[in-house]
Parts: sequence; C-alpha cells; structure tokens
Amino acid sequence: MHTATHPLARLETPAAVIDLPRMQHNIQRMQARMAALGVQFRPHAKTSKCSPVVQAQIDAGARGITVSTLKEAAHFFADGITDILYGVGMVSTKLPQALALRRQGCDLKIVTDSVASAEAIVAYGAAHDEAFEVWIEIDTDGHRSGIRPDEAALIDVARVLHAGGARLGGVMTHAGSSYDLDAPEALAAMAEQERAGCVRAAERLRAAGLPCAVVSVGSTPTALSATSLEGVTEVRAGVYVFFDLVMRNVGVCATQDVALSVLTTVIGHQADKGWAIVDAGWMAMSRDRGTQKQKRDFGYGQVCAIDGTVLAGYVLSGANQEHGILSREGTPEPDIAARFPIGTVLRILPNHACATGAQFPEYQALAQDGELATWSRFHGW
Amino acid sequence: MHTATHPLARLETPAAVIDLPRMQHNIQRMQARMAALGVQFRPHAKTSKCSPVVQAQIDAGARGITVSTLKEAAHFFADGITDILYGVGMVSTKLPQALALRRQGCDLKIVTDSVASAEAIVAYGAAHDEAFEVWIEIDTDGHRSGIRPDEAALIDVARVLHAGGARLGGVMTHAGSSYDLDAPEALAAMAEQERAGCVRAAERLRAAGLPCAVVSVGSTPTALSATSLEGVTEVRAGVYVFFDLVMRNVGVCATQDVALSVLTTVIGHQADKGWAIVDAGWMAMSRDRGTQKQKRDFGYGQVCAIDGTVLAGYVLSGANQEHGILSREGTPEPDIAARFPIGTVLRILPNHACATGAQFPEYQALAQDGELATWSRFHGW
Repeated sequence: MHTATHPLARLETPAAVIDLPRMQHNIQRMQARMAALGVQFRPHAKTSKCSPVVQAQIDAGARGITVSTLKEAAHFFADGITDILYGVGMVSTKLPQALALRRQGCDLKIVTDSVASAEAIVAYGAAHDEAFEVWIEIDTDGHRSGIRPDEAALIDVARVLHAGGARLGGVMTHAGSSYDLDAPEALAAMAEQERAGCVRAAERLRAAGLPCAVVSVGSTPTALSATSLEGVTEVRAGVYVFFDLVMRNVGVCATQDVALSVLTTVIGHQADKGWAIVDAGWMAMSRDRGTQKQKRDFGYGQVCAIDGTVLAGYVLSGANQEHGILSREGTPEPDIAARFPIGTVLRILPNHACATGAQFPEYQALAQDGELATWSRFHGW
Repeated sequence: MHTATHPLARLETPAAVIDLPRMQHNIQRMQARMAALGVQFRPHAKTSKCSPVVQAQIDAGARGITVSTLKEAAHFFADGITDILYGVGMVSTKLPQALALRRQGCDLKIVTDSVASAEAIVAYGAAHDEAFEVWIEIDTDGHRSGIRPDEAALIDVARVLHAGGARLGGVMTHAGSSYDLDAPEALAAMAEQERAGCVRAAERLRAAGLPCAVVSVGSTPTALSATSLEGVTEVRAGVYVFFDLVMRNVGVCATQDVALSVLTTVIGHQADKGWAIVDAGWMAMSRDRGTQKQKRDFGYGQVCAIDGTVLAGYVLSGANQEHGILSREGTPEPDIAARFPIGTVLRILPNHACATGAQFPEYQALAQDGELATWSRFHGW
C-alpha cells in the first residue's frame, strides 16, 4: 500500500495504533494455550484499559478479568463484566469503594497478604454485613508482595478471614521476575516455580481445613512458558494482548506480533548526526526504557514504516517531551533527510505496551481491511 | 499537624498533590529573576497542562506562554491567553490546526528549522491568505533540533519565510543539555552559550536585512544560572513551577522547593527485606528515572511524611504498575512494618514533574490554610 493512501496517513500524530489482526492473533494464541493446559484464563485489563479490547478477550473465552485499580473495576463492571479480581493488596481506605461495587452486583474479589489488612477487611465486612471474597496473595519469586508458600502467616491470615466471616476464595501469585529472563529453560523453570509455590500454598490451606477453591497464577512470560499447570485453576496475564519489545527480548513473541505502535511524523533533521526528529517524544512513548538492560536495547522504540514493516536498525535513540530522535544503530545514516523526508509518517513499536498505552486518551484500531475505529481508553484512579 | 487530621488524609490514593505555597514561591522566584535580568518571561505550559497553574504564572507577570502541543494551545487560548508559542517544529499536517487557531484570534507563533518546512508554511499561508508568525529554532547545544547559529541554512530559511509572506518574528533556542550538568560554573557557562548563540543568530539575520524582533532562550537550569541576558528579549522555562528531584540534583532548587508530590498509602510489607509496599507504582510516578545517572539516585522518588517532611534515606527503590517498593537506602530498616504501618499515608517527590503530572487527570492543590481544590489537567494530543 502506498504511504500517502494508507488509512493511517489521515490521522494526526502522535497517535496510538492497535493492529487488530495482530491483537486477535495474540488473544487466540493465549486462549488456545490455556485451553490446552486445562485452565481458565482471566486477562489483566490494566494493559489496555479499553472496553473493546477487553470485550475481544472475553469473546475469545476469558472468564472474568483482573484489574489494577478500582476505577478499572467500576468501568468494566459498567460494561457488564461481573467477575473481577482487584489484584492489588486491599487497604481499609478502599473498602468503601469495594463494598459499593459489590452492593451493585459486582462479583469483586479482593486480595490481602497480611493479618493487619485481613483484620481490617473482616471488621469492615462485619460492620456492613458484607462477606467479602478474599484471595490470599502468595510470593513465589520474591519480586514484590505476598506471603511465601511455607510461611506461618499464610494460615494466620486465612484463619482471620475465615473466622471473621469473609469468603476465603483462594490463592493468587504473579511471578513478575519472569520479565528479567530470556532463556526458554529459565522461563519454564520460573513458570514451574510459580505453579508449584501457589499450589503448595493451596495445599497448606486445605490441610488446615480451610477452603481454597481458586489457585490463580500468571504473568505473560510464565503463561507462555509453562509446560504443566497441574493444580492451577486459572491463569492471569496482561501485556500479551499487545506484546512489546520487552516481551520480544524475553522471547515470548516476535517483533511482528507487537500490536501497539505510536504513529509519528518526521518534523526535522540534524543531517550531520544522522538524526531525524519526529513528533513522538517520551510523552507519547512513555519514559519506559525496559529494553535498556535486555539483550537488545531499542532506545525508546523500533521504527517501522506506516504499513508496519520493521525498518531494521532504526530506533528512537533519544526522546524529549514531544521530540523523538530517530537514528540508525551503529553508523549514522549519511543522508537521513532523503531516507526520511519531512512529513514522513512512521510507526514506533514501544518497549512496554502498558506504559505507552497509558499516555493516550484513545487508541486508533486498524482492521485488516484498513477500516479505522477510535477506541477510548481511561486514565487515572 | 497530626497525620489522621491532615487535610490530605481524606483523599483517595494515589493522588497528585501541588503544594501551593511552594509553587507560588517558585513562580515568584523565577519572575523576579527575569525582571532583574531585564527580560520578558514566557513559561512553558507543558509541565502542568493545568489552567489555574498557568493563570498563577500569568498573574505573576508572565507575558504569554509556550506550549508543546496544539491541544495545549487550543486549551489555553480558550482560557483567554492569546500570546502562544508552539515550540515544536511545524509540519504541514498541523498547519490547518494552526490556521484555525489564528483565525479565531489566537496570536499563535510557530517554529521551523528547515527550508522544507519553511516552504510548506509559506505555501499553505499563501493558499489561505494567512501570514503566519514564524520563529526560527536555533541549536545552541547540539542536543535536539535547530539550526546552528553560524550555519548558512539560517539565512536560507529566513529568506524563504520573509519572501514568502510569513512574518519572521525572531529566533528561539532551548539548551536542554543543561539538564546533564550539576556545577554552578558549568550551568552559567551553558546559559552564556545559549544566550550568545541565539543572539549571534539574530545578529546574522539583522545583518542580512531580515527582521528579528524576538530573541527567546531558556530552560529551567539556564534561566536560573544566567548572569547576563544581553540581547535576549524573553526567556522560557517549564519545570521550575513545580521543580523535581532532577532539578534538585542539577542544583537549581532545594528538595523542599519541590511542589509536586504523589500521595500514597502503605498497603503491605516484606519485613525480611525492609520493604513497605505502597499504592504508587510507576503508573503514578511515571517511568522517569531521571536521577539514575545523576549525583544522587532517588529511585522512583523521595519519601516524605503526609505533611511534606522529607524522610531522609527513604526512597521508592522499585516500582511495578500499581505497586511501589519503599525502602531505606543502605541498610534495610529492621522493623519496616512498625515504621510504616499498613494504612500510613505518605508523599513521594518525583524525579521529573512533567512526566509524573502527566499520569494524573487532576491535581489536588493544597493551600497554606489546608484548603484543598481539585484542578483538572488535560492529557493527550
């Protein structure tokens, strides 16, 4: 397709573009994998914060969603999704919002990893005659929150919840340190560590006579690397829906699977340096430099033609707020102004889709037939 | 003031808080400095994207504003500000928006640094009977865009504009590499380099018989380090209104001048590691790690008590999307859960105010008397 007649050529830049065939491929791939492994799938809506994207995940077979804020929960509940896990540790100041959602009919599940927080939940539940469904967060890789599978606190927290009238729904974990890996064996080993740790926690609860129906695990790298999910009931993952250059470096997708890109226009040159200046700076790409410490550093992103063709070796090597510096890796391009004349429209693949998406109030969704739709995305808390 | 009764204690977290006395102090300091140096001041609205903040800058004596997007121009023009410089190189696809603003009465100035772009501006202007006011961008430090003061292209671009019917308003430069410095002498030298280069460009234009009324320079570090601004007519700066930890490391403000912070709640602990987990992750702080290569690395931010008192040695050492990891620098805090119990509300000073502000749809503006106001902030392009 010629550049000037490409459907994206009529958009103002910068803009966040979703390649819908790629997105659908990513959704189908994950859902088929989960079906083959015999588990339910609960995608994380934090990546897109966009109703049509989440609807596509539900349509493909997802059972419920995960959210990272109560604003996401309220938004997707208003869309008609009722089975929602709020995956960030509950704190007492957020219980009124959680209660309001449950009172409206949202089957909201909340998470804790401490006796103090569990006590606050049951006290608030008792005061408002509400049996919150609570999942206990398990720490299977030491990267963030959670109770380690063999810690005594696991049983203490569960007893506070169970005795206090909460509904003890299960255990959940997220092996986020999988993002630091890039070898298939290491990823498979991390997936097994995540699975085994969470199952171990569930077994301890059951052995103590406590209910634990759900065993929920996941991150995009481990979900795509697990060989067995025995004992697991559901998997969660977020960034797989778009993928990004960090996931490409981890090794769980190819560059041509990345479904999110930032459309940008060449606005100038510094010919002696081999730079083209584009109108996508860090405000558009986000400040995420997630590939900086990986096996391949893409700067602020990989440059592609307007039709999505990867322009190998060209990256956004620098960024100011609304200016990006496009250059060739290694030796500078001797005639950058001829290679990328002013007005050239390009697409930049991001390091981290969750961070880049968050910079935009809307996505431009590009279908296979060239049709464009504007999909709004929400922002804030 | 006791924590539980502090006015910020009733807000949901995370939230972006502006300390108004600090902001007013920062505004007054810059405006007084510009008055003493005998130049006009044109603040950059990209930092706050917030009407009351920009109004406070105008009220203090600013003459017009700079913007980084045409959405900012439209927003602040709707507020009644007419003298607006769009500081990013103009490209032909954005000329219709610029024309529409001028037709509505906005005294919008646009910027170019190439013959190709200048030709597009005059062709579009001729076709629509519009004499755009154009400033030529000068490159005084090699960090981004612009024509070097002694380049032949400077006169070429000016002649295209002048002969083509545009209004040649002046020259502008931004010595953004000042952000990489931290010694007063080096900052003063960079300010002088910025001044001298831009004045030199203006003199070349005038010597060629071309008009050049405006000589516009600036960045927060150089504006606060210049000892003479001879030949300069106006200065631009943005981040000074809030300041941040990057500016603290550059040396142009103190930590207690930083007027923007992120309010957050402790939601958990990993006691053996000395971590408190808070509900401000990188989505709230932004991914900006601007202090990473500076003389002091603050991680994702400096931790303060709810009343703004700096808690020396405590930083956000890590961040996931909605989880921040708070820890003590050096040796871990042996009893982190007692030091920061679950539910503790804290304020985190950001690395980069422009990037952190952009993560929030609104600011919570805290006055000296404890009164809180919600100030909306816009987003996107």
